[in-house]
Amino acid sequence: MSEKITGIAASAGIAIAKTFILKNPDLSFERSTVSDKEAEKKKLNDALEISKKELTSIKETAERELGKDKAEVFAAHLMFLSDPEFVGQISSKIDDESLSAESALDDVSSFFIQMFESMKDNEYMRERAADVRDVSKRLLAHILGVSFTSPASITEETVIIAEDLTPSDTAQLNRKYVKGFATDIGGRTSHSAIMSRSMEIPAVVGTKTVMEQAKEGQLAIIDGLSGEVILDPTEEEVNEYKAKQAAYKEQQEEWKKLVHETTKTKDDAHVILGANIGNPGDVTGVVNNGGEAVGLYRTEFLYMGRDKLPTEDEQFDAYKEVLVKMENKPVVIRTLDIGGDKKLSYLPLPEEMNPFLGFRAIRLCLERQDIFRTQLRALLRASAYGKLRIMFPMIATIDEFRQAKAILLEEQEKLVAAGTKVSDDLQVGMMMEIPAAAVLADRFAKEADFFSIGTNDLIQYTMAADRMNQHVSYLYQPCNPSILRLVSNIIDAAHKEGHWAGMCGEMAGDATAIPLLLALGLDEFSMSATSILPARSQLLKLSKEDLAKHKEAFLNLDTAEEVLDYVKTKMI
Amino acid sequence: MSEKITGIAASAGIAIAKTFILKNPDLSFERSTVSDKEAEKKKLNDALEISKKELTSIKETAERELGKDKAEVFAAHLMFLSDPEFVGQISSKIDDESLSAESALDDVSSFFIQMFESMKDNEYMRERAADVRDVSKRLLAHILGVSFTSPASITEETVIIAEDLTPSDTAQLNRKYVKGFATDIGGRTSHSAIMSRSMEIPAVVGTKTVMEQAKEGQLAIIDGLSGEVILDPTEEEVNEYKAKQAAYKEQQEEWKKLVHETTKTKDDAHVILGANIGNPGDVTGVVNNGGEAVGLYRTEFLYMGRDKLPTEDEQFDAYKEVLVKMENKPVVIRTLDIGGDKKLSYLPLPEEMNPFLGFRAIRLCLERQDIFRTQLRALLRASAYGKLRIMFPMIATIDEFRQAKAILLEEQEKLVAAGTKVSDDLQVGMMMEIPAAAVLADRFAKEADFFSIGTNDLIQYTMAADRMNQHVSYLYQPCNPSILRLVSNIIDAAHKEGHWAGMCGEMAGDATAIPLLLALGLDEFSMSATSILPARSQLLKLSKEDLAKHKEAFLNLDTAEEVLDYVKTKMI
Repeated sequence: MSEKITGIAASAGIAIAKTFILKNPDLSFERSTVSDKEAEKKKLNDALEISKKELTSIKETAERELGKDKAEVFAAHLMFLSDPEFVGQISSKIDDESLSAESALDDVSSFFIQMFESMKDNEYMRERAADVRDVSKRLLAHILGVSFTSPASITEETVIIAEDLTPSDTAQLNRKYVKGFATDIGGRTSHSAIMSRSMEIPAVVGTKTVMEQAKEGQLAIIDGLSGEVILDPTEEEVNEYKAKQAAYKEQQEEWKKLVHETTKTKDDAHVILGANIGNPGDVTGVVNNGGEAVGLYRTEFLYMGRDKLPTEDEQFDAYKEVLVKMENKPVVIRTLDIGGDKKLSYLPLPEEMNPFLGFRAIRLCLERQDIFRTQLRALLRASAYGKLRIMFPMIATIDEFRQAKAILLEEQEKLVAAGTKVSDDLQVGMMMEIPAAAVLADRFAKEADFFSIGTNDLIQYTMAADRMNQHVSYLYQPCNPSILRLVSNIIDAAHKEGHWAGMCGEMAGDATAIPLLLALGLDEFSMSATSILPARSQLLKLSKEDLAKHKEAFLNLDTAEEVLDYVKTKMI
Repeated sequence: MSEKITGIAASAGIAIAKTFILKNPDLSFERSTVSDKEAEKKKLNDALEISKKELTSIKETAERELGKDKAEVFAAHLMFLSDPEFVGQISSKIDDESLSAESALDDVSSFFIQMFESMKDNEYMRERAADVRDVSKRLLAHILGVSFTSPASITEETVIIAEDLTPSDTAQLNRKYVKGFATDIGGRTSHSAIMSRSMEIPAVVGTKTVMEQAKEGQLAIIDGLSGEVILDPTEEEVNEYKAKQAAYKEQQEEWKKLVHETTKTKDDAHVILGANIGNPGDVTGVVNNGGEAVGLYRTEFLYMGRDKLPTEDEQFDAYKEVLVKMENKPVVIRTLDIGGDKKLSYLPLPEEMNPFLGFRAIRLCLERQDIFRTQLRALLRASAYGKLRIMFPMIATIDEFRQAKAILLEEQEKLVAAGTKVSDDLQVGMMMEIPAAAVLADRFAKEADFFSIGTNDLIQYTMAADRMNQHVSYLYQPCNPSILRLVSNIIDAAHKEGHWAGMCGEMAGDATAIPLLLALGLDEFSMSATSILPARSQLLKLSKEDLAKHKEAFLNLDTAEEVLDYVKTKMI
């Protein structure tokens, strides 16, 4: 009899292969003291060296396979292993308390983990606790001489079953052999889920019991479309899922044919499908997936995982690279959106009670004009190499937009006066992610060249609900009529002034939301690169004019549920 | 030569009197160990007893003079002095480390203060640190035998000059002698500022230097209208301010004549002026200030400063008392709005990264229906004694309103079936404080009997700015056109369904906002009781019809500044 386990569909696709159970190594030991302290310190140092070598290699693989931003976490791990505070405390414990290396490590890492975890309401710090756990586990295994089951050791086709995958685990997955994975814990936005999507490996997370139920080497089906895992499937099930797999592959092949198509609806309306990127390296994926634009380049990653601000030239190089690679297709670059949950080690920001309602993005940039002007100069210089659109984040008032634009124009004048070429086709727009701006969009449209709707934040503020907070995440309702009305207001306001309106939040790539957004007249949809082709395939079959007839009706429904019903029954 | 110091106007009115400088007592001591531990423990216990007696008396005075909610803080101080954790640790330090009582106290209180303060992003906890400081200072003074300059000792007319006033200081102010005060630190919403307003003592806070500049016993003028302090005023200045004082008193006398007037504008439009209250005791102030309604009864205080939930009967008594005292005038009672920055010791809530976007108010009540139903039953039973309007806080979606109302109706049916009398004139409405609800007000108006706009939260969410966060408090702009548009939308939606719309945020009592709100058609203005008469005086002179002509114009301005200019030049 086969066993069916339901979890959360984390990454689309179907995998059928034998299981590889990724067990946590046995790292138990007796706490002990030693007489030969030097020997313990040598053990520690040897383990440090091996761990660093491993992590350096994992980091390189990750940079190559996953991109620089995804590899940042290993730079953080490496930094930790070289941190005199961390390593020094372990050594001192060996010296002062004659502890064995593993006992000393355990004391020190527990201290750091507890310290980070005690900052309970700080998600960033909790993640740092997970990093210390991951890196300490590696170090401990080497001190104890326990061999580490590494996903890198997999050399035949398998699906991985694990409690959870750590960043170092996912970075070592070889797509050639690892066909899918299922985990006990995690949700759609957990680290392993995000990684599985960017690697395009079918995955189901949060099954709660798959580790308990699965046996090593048994056949398993992982259905990343429906969120199901089947252990020991019957022949009938295998055949059924092979057909489903084939259908999905066929669909993917169909999608691939659309790479060079423009996105025209059935009634010949052209919409732009763009991608959200974090690094110049991501542009390859955008081009391969037929992106017609970069709808959002998040520049934060340029500032992260380093110990000082990036220089103007470093930034210029990055921006230029993206513009050049996009070959004169539009590229929307968002100025620095740091603060809130995104922090920089070298830019201490005030601790805040409600960081999402705090000192971040444009609010910070208008005060730290040194940082802002450097970025703007780099952007202006890069503008000569393509079709640049500069976008300010977190604009709440027209004053803020005017101030930001005035600073940009000042820098532009200075550059032009100094003989630097600046594009004469530059557009200056803003994120629409704060309710105040959405409500006043008609007035903003007289100042900004375009709007890009950031639904993640817009929904969060409009609903007054932190979507990372599981107790209120039910209020994250992209299709609530209140959100759709604001989106509609933003689009109409842009059009009235002859501007375009885009969307760069998660909603833009959602198959249920797309008909609604098309009906509202959205001009540009920006999503993760891998969603572009499915979205194009969907849009080719829709008629903008027909859908627009439903606009009044769905904007006057009461609840998100009613809207979803409406779309499913009348608009798809 | 007189010295002028500018601070923040915290409480209206003008005081002219000799200064009383409230110095911090000298509580320095040498850390020391002792041989007679029993003697130290006796010192500690004696000091505890005296401190408890003092605090009990302060608490009683505060309850009588300031109301029960303002006295809560002393209950917290008293609890701390009886906390076995706190007192036990001090005793143990004396026993185990032979420390003097003062040294032991200092160690333990420092530990608690640091612990609370280390929770930097938690305002509630930081306030607890201030409590420990206040109570430890008192205890230390008694251990050291240092006499404490207490504001209670003042027996002639003075103005107090202090670095800051602690809760225990303000509670001891005798209005007969203390004519005003000025402090170095604090802002308009600091503890001392709030207290000065509710006690109607003119006050200037945040002067930074008044403690340094003032000399004991010199003449001083405190202008709580403009925020100025004048030390050693010239005779000319004294005369000028006496005239200003007389004019202000005259204005107050004029206001007092309006206590029994209804609030009719020049063109005979009737608006309701109500008050926001926290306790049944506050109703006296409402009646004395001519309140035509209680526009917001915050029921949180019923749940605070205790160690378990209030019973249904306790709540019933409180609600009934308010309804009876208001003599059939409307009373809007808001159901429990706990969570966020308001916590209960006996109701542990999850730590949240962004408590203002978290699990609070109706979100909590829909999950903790035991708490919610108890309150609803108490409200329904009390409804027979007056004109009750039940209001749900933090409604974001129509689903939530429907759920809350369904629970209310269930409880009502049960009560009626059991023969309990429930008013047949009960209205069930909601706070309009979340942008999603404001945008969808037309749909909500089909479900709710009335709306009350909570501007504090509405502005905070609409602007995505925590108003308690000084780095972004500039975004707290009640008169931003985006806010006014939402307010307008809410009022129009209510009227279209034949309902009334009120406002219970700080904006409702603001002299600049009042003409705008009248123009938008607001039916009910709810404010602090002491603002009612000035507001009535203002409204009697305004014409609703004339002001309404400006509506289109000011809703189509760009910035808050433009709106403020517009009101001042064209509408006042």
